[in-house]
Amino acid sequence: MASDGSEFLERWHRIVENRDLDALEAILAEAPSLGAPPYWQKLTGRDVVHHLLGIIIETIEGFTYHREWINERELALEFTGKVAGMDLQGIDLITIDEAGQLVNIDVMIRPINAVTALMERVTPRMTEFFAARSTGD
Amino acid sequence: MASDGSEFLERWHRIVENRDLDALEAILAEAPSLGAPPYWQKLTGRDVVHHLLGIIIETIEGFTYHREWINERELALEFTGKVAGMDLQGIDLITIDEAGQLVNIDVMIRPINAVTALMERVTPRMTEFFAARSTGD
Repeated sequence: MASDGSEFLERWHRIVENRDLDALEAILAEAPSLGAPPYWQKLTGRDVVHHLLGIIIETIEGFTYHREWINERELALEFTGKVAGMDLQGIDLITIDEAGQLVNIDVMIRPINAVTALMERVTPRMTEFFAARSTGD
Repeated sequence: MASDGSEFLERWHRIVENRDLDALEAILAEAPSLGAPPYWQKLTGRDVVHHLLGIIIETIEGFTYHREWINERELALEFTGKVAGMDLQGIDLITIDEAGQLVNIDVMIRPINAVTALMERVTPRMTEFFAARSTGD
């Protein structure tokens, strides 16, 4: 496994470009966390983070990365895209571990109308996911 | 004038820490632009950008910078703070020119309830500002 931010970045780009949810799962650390636009509290756990990231990648159209910064295992990745026809700009702040796997990702997006539209599309699918998971327990 | 991102960063930290609006004005380029959390369209012009940045700096309590990335004249600065008792995490994506002055800043903040609370505090003051300016024309 790579411990270098630039190697992670190559894998990350392929995942987002191909919407490759299997490769996304493989790049997550054992106990990843995600700071999402709607909530202050972090979401935690491989299955939750994988599912939510997958929905976000599927929902944002024309996902394109722009400026990228790497400080060792801390990455800041600017992106743009559209949701419901509305332009958005966002940033992924990603921390990877020594094995090159994602341990935390914080996602911030502007403007607020795009965040609201994204939430409207993501929330029902996350609710379904949590409901199915609790039924499966 | 400094053209180095790290020198800009030192000045920027002092400005935010001291809420020093005169020093903020001095660090802005001739025609700066600002991508704010509420709007897709950039706000432009020295007086508008200065006024809005000033209000944001005054409104967010406990403004603290954390992870910082510099790629030559492109900076990404993570911050936390509070508005109306609510925690927030944000990022400033800043571009400086050859003279070391700010030409663009994009601000993204999570979570959405903090963005809404910030907007509620900022919007009336920006409306006042625009009204006074148009009266003054």
